Amino acid sequence: MKWAIVLAGGAGTRFWPLSTPSRPKHVLPLAGDRPTICDAINRLAGLIDPERTLIVTAAALAAQVADLVELPADNILSEPRPASTAPALVWATMEAARRDPEAEVITTHADWAVSDAARFRQVAAQAVEAAVQYDRLVTVGIVPTRPESGYGYIIPGPPLDARVRRVARFTEKPDGHRALDLIAAGALWNSGLFAWTARRLAAEVRRHTPEIAPALPHLAEGDVAGFFTAVTPISIDVGVLERSNAVAVVPGDFAWDDIGTWEALHRIRPRDAAGNVIVGPGYLLDAADCVVWSDGAPVVLDGVRDLIVVNANGRILVTTRRRAAHLKNVLETLPPEIRDLP
Amino acid sequence: MKWAIVLAGGAGTRFWPLSTPSRPKHVLPLAGDRPTICDAINRLAGLIDPERTLIVTAAALAAQVADLVELPADNILSEPRPASTAPALVWATMEAARRDPEAEVITTHADWAVSDAARFRQVAAQAVEAAVQYDRLVTVGIVPTRPESGYGYIIPGPPLDARVRRVARFTEKPDGHRALDLIAAGALWNSGLFAWTARRLAAEVRRHTPEIAPALPHLAEGDVAGFFTAVTPISIDVGVLERSNAVAVVPGDFAWDDIGTWEALHRIRPRDAAGNVIVGPGYLLDAADCVVWSDGAPVVLDGVRDLIVVNANGRILVTTRRRAAHLKNVLETLPPEIRDLP
Repeated sequence: MKWAIVLAGGAGTRFWPLSTPSRPKHVLPLAGDRPTICDAINRLAGLIDPERTLIVTAAALAAQVADLVELPADNILSEPRPASTAPALVWATMEAARRDPEAEVITTHADWAVSDAARFRQVAAQAVEAAVQYDRLVTVGIVPTRPESGYGYIIPGPPLDARVRRVARFTEKPDGHRALDLIAAGALWNSGLFAWTARRLAAEVRRHTPEIAPALPHLAEGDVAGFFTAVTPISIDVGVLERSNAVAVVPGDFAWDDIGTWEALHRIRPRDAAGNVIVGPGYLLDAADCVVWSDGAPVVLDGVRDLIVVNANGRILVTTRRRAAHLKNVLETLPPEIRDLP
Repeated sequence: MKWAIVLAGGAGTRFWPLSTPSRPKHVLPLAGDRPTICDAINRLAGLIDPERTLIVTAAALAAQVADLVELPADNILSEPRPASTAPALVWATMEAARRDPEAEVITTHADWAVSDAARFRQVAAQAVEAAVQYDRLVTVGIVPTRPESGYGYIIPGPPLDARVRRVARFTEKPDGHRALDLIAAGALWNSGLFAWTARRLAAEVRRHTPEIAPALPHLAEGDVAGFFTAVTPISIDVGVLERSNAVAVVPGDFAWDDIGTWEALHRIRPRDAAGNVIVGPGYLLDAADCVVWSDGAPVVLDGVRDLIVVNANGRILVTTRRRAAHLKNVLETLPPEIRDLP
């Protein structure tokens, strides 16, 4: 049967001061009226039953996540410690296989915006079919719509069939010019939407991932804490996909956004006639192409453009859409008592 | 003896959302650490005793003003209703003359920033001397330092002596080009710093100001409410100075600002190395030439310049220094429940 793994991690600094360690991205209604994790579960409806959907999250957030979604309680998997994506995905895949030896797994994230859920499900189904048919780790490569330098790219290789291709190579976060060259050469965005069987994933980890392979027996014994203590944190891209020859790529031709910065809201949310995105009590006069978010006090803008203005959790941020991606650097300069939110 | 009249009116919208009807400009520490009305009183020290300093303010604000300054209680004059500057100045001048028939009056405002108080006092003393010597209404014309289009200008006429000149004419709020022409021709800013005797002011009002002259007998009878009911609101400039031939001007060569907009704070307050004025908890990274004021929540700015950001009284304003003078227009577009503050 088909299983889904939903990663709900994230440190919660990219949407400061709205996101906090106790209220990270995926529990916030960034893309619409509901928390993005609700969108992530609903997006799977019809393709994968809730009984076969596993969410991996931090122990401190598990109760909050469980309240937001309608899943069996033991489908919420609490990581003993954050260890990047590879240990989380290996653990959850092995858990799916423990419950269903025939499990075919697709992986997704709790904080994506996807325009066309039906198309998302079609492509995810194609990825799973390819994973089984070709016995490979399959990644969905999103067809790029802009020269984004914040994403990783996949350069497809020779075709396996009309839709599925080998992977020539992965490349991380190019600058803008290189991104344009990559797109011209047919590169795709590495989304994090993967498909595989437990058997193939375990085989590739054993072959290529010394950071995790020695810890696998802990999982076989049901000792999750021991597994997480033994692994070295590493991402699934660096630790497995970029090292393996048994990968393939299926193109994802739907609008996809990982909601990585405040700027993303300008892409994914409805805009007014002047191109402004306003969430909460925002009053804009002669203001264009701004993003305004307030959880309380009314915000009045006049004579400005391309600004991001956020009032949340007792902090006010004013920056530009261009600088939104540098928010982490800004936070590093703030006194901890100003930066750190509960 | 010399008397001072300090006008402390003002509707309190130019510094929205910090200023409110119950907390207007002159009770706010806009220019420094103290309310500007305290600066206004202290600026007179040595020239005019507190016993001979009268403050004209609104009845609703009188108790608040009395708490801020050390003046005899009956030197706080409460206007029965707002009626612009001419009725207030005529009333206060007649009150000074009632207490001291030899009163020589200078008038000032409670919400100015003046760089050099000693020079201010010297020039004010020159103005009073000229008012007595030439039996004229004397206005201090500030030597302009920029082509300000928010001020009225005085075009001096033939000299009366080395320092005092007749007034050729007044002109209101020119555009930027016209302001440059005026400055090149020797025009001065009409500050509101005036000097006169009660006798001369009453004579000019009787001759030129039908909006007020018929109401003067009320004052002679001590019926202030009757006087304010009978007058038609009019400014001292339009109602008296621009109509009279018995005016003169003394140049004021000190830095003077009427703190008319948020932009004024950029001129009168200390700036950091990047040209920012920060009052309250402001954290600016890669931000230049901004004005930030917060009465509570920390405000973080990054990648912006020439912005004005104010967090006060549960409202947040983000505008530009260029647009600061248009704040009144902005407020007119806001829903009353957002705009109106107690």
